[in-house]
Amino acid sequence: MNSNTSTLASADADRISPADIQAGHTAYELDRKHVFHSWSAQEQLQPMNVIDAEGSWIWDGEGRRLLDFTSQLIFTNAGHKHPKIIEAIKQQAEKLCTVAPQHVNDARSEAARLITELLPEDINHVFFTNGGADANEHAVRMARLHTGRRKVLSAYRSYHGGTHLAVNLTGDPRRVPNDDDAGVVRFLPPFTYRSHFRPDSAAQWTPEQETERALAHLRDTLVLEGPSQVAALILEAIPGTAGIYLPPAGYMEGARALCDEFGVVMILDEVMAGFGRSGKWFAHEHFAIEPDIVTFAKGVNSGYVPMGGVAMDDAIYASFAQRMYPGGLTYSGHPLAMAAAVAAINAMRDEAMVENAARLGAEVIGPRLEDMKNNHPAVGDVRGTGAFWAIELVRDKATREPLAPYGQTPAVMADLVAACKAKGVVPFINMNRIHICPPLNTADDDVRFGLDVIDEVLALADEVISVQQ
Amino acid sequence: MNSNTSTLASADADRISPADIQAGHTAYELDRKHVFHSWSAQEQLQPMNVIDAEGSWIWDGEGRRLLDFTSQLIFTNAGHKHPKIIEAIKQQAEKLCTVAPQHVNDARSEAARLITELLPEDINHVFFTNGGADANEHAVRMARLHTGRRKVLSAYRSYHGGTHLAVNLTGDPRRVPNDDDAGVVRFLPPFTYRSHFRPDSAAQWTPEQETERALAHLRDTLVLEGPSQVAALILEAIPGTAGIYLPPAGYMEGARALCDEFGVVMILDEVMAGFGRSGKWFAHEHFAIEPDIVTFAKGVNSGYVPMGGVAMDDAIYASFAQRMYPGGLTYSGHPLAMAAAVAAINAMRDEAMVENAARLGAEVIGPRLEDMKNNHPAVGDVRGTGAFWAIELVRDKATREPLAPYGQTPAVMADLVAACKAKGVVPFINMNRIHICPPLNTADDDVRFGLDVIDEVLALADEVISVQQ
Ligand SMILES: Cc1ncc(COP(=O)(O)O)c(C=O)c1O
Ligand SMILES: Cc1ncc(COP(=O)(O)O)c(C=O)c1O
Repeated sequence: MNSNTSTLASADADRISPADIQAGHTAYELDRKHVFHSWSAQEQLQPMNVIDAEGSWIWDGEGRRLLDFTSQLIFTNAGHKHPKIIEAIKQQAEKLCTVAPQHVNDARSEAARLITELLPEDINHVFFTNGGADANEHAVRMARLHTGRRKVLSAYRSYHGGTHLAVNLTGDPRRVPNDDDAGVVRFLPPFTYRSHFRPDSAAQWTPEQETERALAHLRDTLVLEGPSQVAALILEAIPGTAGIYLPPAGYMEGARALCDEFGVVMILDEVMAGFGRSGKWFAHEHFAIEPDIVTFAKGVNSGYVPMGGVAMDDAIYASFAQRMYPGGLTYSGHPLAMAAAVAAINAMRDEAMVENAARLGAEVIGPRLEDMKNNHPAVGDVRGTGAFWAIELVRDKATREPLAPYGQTPAVMADLVAACKAKGVVPFINMNRIHICPPLNTADDDVRFGLDVIDEVLALADEVISVQQ
Repeated sequence: MNSNTSTLASADADRISPADIQAGHTAYELDRKHVFHSWSAQEQLQPMNVIDAEGSWIWDGEGRRLLDFTSQLIFTNAGHKHPKIIEAIKQQAEKLCTVAPQHVNDARSEAARLITELLPEDINHVFFTNGGADANEHAVRMARLHTGRRKVLSAYRSYHGGTHLAVNLTGDPRRVPNDDDAGVVRFLPPFTYRSHFRPDSAAQWTPEQETERALAHLRDTLVLEGPSQVAALILEAIPGTAGIYLPPAGYMEGARALCDEFGVVMILDEVMAGFGRSGKWFAHEHFAIEPDIVTFAKGVNSGYVPMGGVAMDDAIYASFAQRMYPGGLTYSGHPLAMAAAVAAINAMRDEAMVENAARLGAEVIGPRLEDMKNNHPAVGDVRGTGAFWAIELVRDKATREPLAPYGQTPAVMADLVAACKAKGVVPFINMNRIHICPPLNTADDDVRFGLDVIDEVLALADEVISVQQ
């Protein structure tokens, strides 16, 4: 599959038949009649049709082939139609498709074994959920019951899911219409490029200063809220949707030390950053810490079957050894999802996908994004690791003023997306950012093709600025 | 498969090999090492191993065949290994296993079309979730944003799921350790056998009186809470886990009228009762009402792939036509789950499973349970519809004193379960009740076999009483 010859002028007739396209049109009409979509004003939508997919490529409603720089919603870490995962699903469907959570199931046992094997030594138990939101809900519940405290500290500029408690843990504008007392106390995270701590007067500002001030702020928040009331600190191991901004050196270690000092449970949300996305199996491996609880979903089985989970250390587990854990769900440890996870993890290992993500980040994506930053007036910052990168668009490189105020999507983003698609790439957009998140096993040439397209279309953002100046 | 010859003395060697049994033992050990189970004290568990299943039968860790009177967790409505559902999953896995929720997918479009076709005429849109709990969470959010009000009225003796808001909507003892302000106001539901309204002095008490008093109580609660603050009334269409107690005639209609009078959204939770369980496609069809929102999960695809949903009427939909709905999830409308739903619904139609459930209830289960009530001193009440029945065990038929106080499980229940299993049947137990919930397409002879076993083991409960008297 040579991606560089892909222009999206016409349908991929070798693969997609006119009947497929017709079926896609019918699906589109029915979608508009009957399907209610996430995070949307329903009648302002023109959703894209995806009628086929393979590896890092998808085919749209007109049968055109596009490179998927989104991994869908950052979950197809092993790409589409991975033969080993498909085969495992088919076999499990034949063998035993479903079973109640209270029974023992061999696929579930093996998934739990594999997952805990990848995690720190004293994390030995997994409670399986259906996705990321409910994983975070249950993690908080465990922390609350373990400590006997209610408050949870959670960072602004974060995303933790869409259910009531999870969306209230979230620090992004999608929480605001859902605001409710859920025992969540929010604090400002360290963010070197958009520091909440740097004084305007500071001539320069180092990552060390950011870490120091952010930790002082976290300590102040904790102390002023009353540590005896704080059950947990929840952090994305690397904040994802909110901007793929890595914590500066020392921050996570400092946060861990604060949790230890005050008996606060440290929950790391690895739903997006985990399972190889960051170039390590778990993003917390970038730091010298061990969390008490890790939540995951997405990459665990590349989203082939809905699944998430809460992995907990022995101390949390011990809290529920003789006392009932008051939580559960019908599809906890669903065999089909578990079989997909076992196959996905084994395939990722056998095919060294995590190592490949690290290499892609260090050798292919990172350097090229640095070039883009140097060449495009509108590119204020590029950052990331592994197959997990963000390009941040600004009005002014010096002031770092974003292309639109926080919470808004600049008008040019729609044009950027359209131009990318016309050239054969689907990008991930959030506010003033383009995220580059291909499957971990995307071929180098395909990644380069996608980066070429991004590089080209960034001219549209540059134009917006030049017009306004 | 002649069930009546099934005694569980020995393994089903025709089907289960020694290697299968050995694999099951390994799975059990790994489960105890690494899997954290729902609603349990982890080290007080001895979970049952399920190593194979077909139709209404499962095979335990020793390879013994057992009739499944639980439909697992009341979700395998079409039984295990239904060839059409398995085939649909395998085909969808090959075709397109997963896609992000924002894209159009043909399996999702068709599932939404089929589901809305089964619902009242003005329910035309479905928001898909991963299970029942998140369906209820989103239903409440829609009602809150639609009305601009926060409070939700929810019944005691109910179950609505395990996430934070869903468990707070729940009116059973599992909520108590999770109690938190979630804007939920609880009220007493009508329950003819265990009336919360009947005066001790009443010589007799009719369903009409129960309906009248329960509706007066609901109105009082609503009026005293302030209808201008009440977004929704949520009710299980037929309360399931809490005891399969059907509302007396007129109650649901009265509740609907109250919702209309005060502009309150009526949410019916059909997660357990829906998709044929009650002998109709939806349990609300037993009443002359149309809900504003219906939540579902379980039976929609017999739990073959995790999935749930919120079906809403045009008025709720219109609220989010031009305004963003602030909620979502990664696996909303997951193709594999959707393909399983399409196949399950079509199979249920083609094979008249819902009609069969109605017939089983009316002709096989209901009459036989009446006999048990007449013959067993410990059986206080039997009730249900379709393939959805409860046997309630009491110390005293006259006083209706349950075999253990509310919230507790009588000691004899463990013996009952063990005796059932020894005779080849897996029953569903909750507090002082045995629920009879086989797959809707269970053969009459198999149902009779299971009922024979239940009838026999009820002697254990009778003994408890006679000893104590
Ligand atoms: C960091 C993080 N946590 C939680 C979630 C929620 O996961 P889900 O959509 O499966 O509920 C997401 C989803 O994007 C996420 O990125
Ligand atoms: C009536 C009802 N609502 C909601 C739920 C929760 O569904 P889930 O376990 O899929 O979250 C259940 C589960 O038993 C249920 O019976």
